[in-house]
Amino acid sequence: MNISVIGGGSIGLYFTAQLALASHQLTVVCRSERQAGEIARKGIRYIDLTDSVQQVWPRTQWIEDRPLDADWIFLTVKQPQILSTIPYLKKQRADIPILCFQNGMGHEEVLRSHLPYASIYQAITTVGAYRRDPCSVQHTGQGVTYVGSLANNSETPSVLRNLVEKLDGAAVSAQIERDMRDRVWKKLIMNSCINPLTALFQVQNGELLENKHALQMMEQLYQEAVAVARLQGVEIDSNFLQEIVQVCRNTYGNKSSMLQDIESGKETEIKFINGAIVRAARHVGIEVPIHAALTQLIQAKQQYSAQR
Amino acid sequence: MNISVIGGGSIGLYFTAQLALASHQLTVVCRSERQAGEIARKGIRYIDLTDSVQQVWPRTQWIEDRPLDADWIFLTVKQPQILSTIPYLKKQRADIPILCFQNGMGHEEVLRSHLPYASIYQAITTVGAYRRDPCSVQHTGQGVTYVGSLANNSETPSVLRNLVEKLDGAAVSAQIERDMRDRVWKKLIMNSCINPLTALFQVQNGELLENKHALQMMEQLYQEAVAVARLQGVEIDSNFLQEIVQVCRNTYGNKSSMLQDIESGKETEIKFINGAIVRAARHVGIEVPIHAALTQLIQAKQQYSAQR
Repeated sequence: MNISVIGGGSIGLYFTAQLALASHQLTVVCRSERQAGEIARKGIRYIDLTDSVQQVWPRTQWIEDRPLDADWIFLTVKQPQILSTIPYLKKQRADIPILCFQNGMGHEEVLRSHLPYASIYQAITTVGAYRRDPCSVQHTGQGVTYVGSLANNSETPSVLRNLVEKLDGAAVSAQIERDMRDRVWKKLIMNSCINPLTALFQVQNGELLENKHALQMMEQLYQEAVAVARLQGVEIDSNFLQEIVQVCRNTYGNKSSMLQDIESGKETEIKFINGAIVRAARHVGIEVPIHAALTQLIQAKQQYSAQR
Repeated sequence: MNISVIGGGSIGLYFTAQLALASHQLTVVCRSERQAGEIARKGIRYIDLTDSVQQVWPRTQWIEDRPLDADWIFLTVKQPQILSTIPYLKKQRADIPILCFQNGMGHEEVLRSHLPYASIYQAITTVGAYRRDPCSVQHTGQGVTYVGSLANNSETPSVLRNLVEKLDGAAVSAQIERDMRDRVWKKLIMNSCINPLTALFQVQNGELLENKHALQMMEQLYQEAVAVARLQGVEIDSNFLQEIVQVCRNTYGNKSSMLQDIESGKETEIKFINGAIVRAARHVGIEVPIHAALTQLIQAKQQYSAQR
């Protein structure tokens, strides 16, 4: 397969390396000309779970270049950068399916409003990857990549079945997900309970469990989010809070992406995570004051971090 | 006059020095034996507004010593330390009036429940003072000290009139305040809007004004607090938010006491400031989710800071 991966972050580099090792044709489309140049010169250094290092040489592009042909576009940039990818996506053939890897909610509406004829699919991945520098990525955890459609389709298109087969063949454990909306909501709830608190206190995931007050905040965020999800018709198991706690335990020493963004003075995904819950709550007519407060607090913190 | 000042913080040391310079007899009652010993050996170094340094030699005591006679007790410890002063206060003659300098609300109920026969008065001071070390204090800003009773008395007792006269004579600008409850509430609202945000983001007072999201949080805290105050029968001017903003501007480079506590890993007054608003809201039957959230968040932050 011929795949264009837009975004040279941890997820973008991981999928590029893993699929290139399985002899697919990859193009990394970078948002910065500099990263595109660096990868063109040095390739991608891929460190697998056993700490073995392999080198791959994908094609590279800067996002302002002219388009290349592809069977799939993997859109791996973070939510705040979605808008900046629209001009590039508009240059592509409309029949190339786009697979979105964003957390949170909101990107699909943006894409559909600018690209009304695009075939848009969603991936939710639990793979762990860490970008060490613009040209090297480390695989840090096994995971499953669920792919599906956010639209209510009963049938799975063959293009999606074909993709899952190829991913599996490249040792990326993949599955078709029929209830993609439920899965997106669950990931959203999980991120909305963990990420803003780790970013606000600048602590690792596991440290949330050792602080009674942080745990109470997490539970309040959870209760508010679940109420919104249920009113949206999404089923959430009664023990899902325990699952979130378990994820914090399993990823004890991890820094959430939101904390990493705060530490490096970057814009976070807060508007698309807790902010998405605030917007969804408005649709169903309830209030989520704790999510609203954390959305504001992280935006304030982000501004202070960027100034330092 | 003979005054026992309980607490060797900035406010305790400031009033001790200023009154000792006017030839009153002062005793500093320290919570730590070490500070009591240091002040006994070295005296208090007092740096006035013109940066002139003067030395005063008050008597000193450790809070576990036996009581001394006094005309007034000035209770200047912070809210979280009130309980630790009760055993000492119980040893005093019940007719010695106690002047409380705490911010927030809650200390009066605690004192009354343990000392049912005590004469308890409240001071609200806008004096600026900064403790440089356990034996030296700097006067950093002119201010007025309002004294009065939180109980609903129409008459001002002569003991209070006499105190104001003596404070004025010692160049501490003082006034009798008939609406002490209103003044306490206003200081409470002001502190509840400024302190937790400065502590959470670890910024100076003025930096709150330069961050749109921090300002929005401040306004939400303000709206919630004013609703509670009004339901408690306290009048708040419609432009009081502007006053709070002006205070942030006037104290641009100041670190709030709550931020100082966070930075030194100490317990903050959050439970008696924003927490007091949460309790007051419960009494009048409304919800203040932003104050409740910030109370939790600061308690969490305090625990993380103490562990570092």
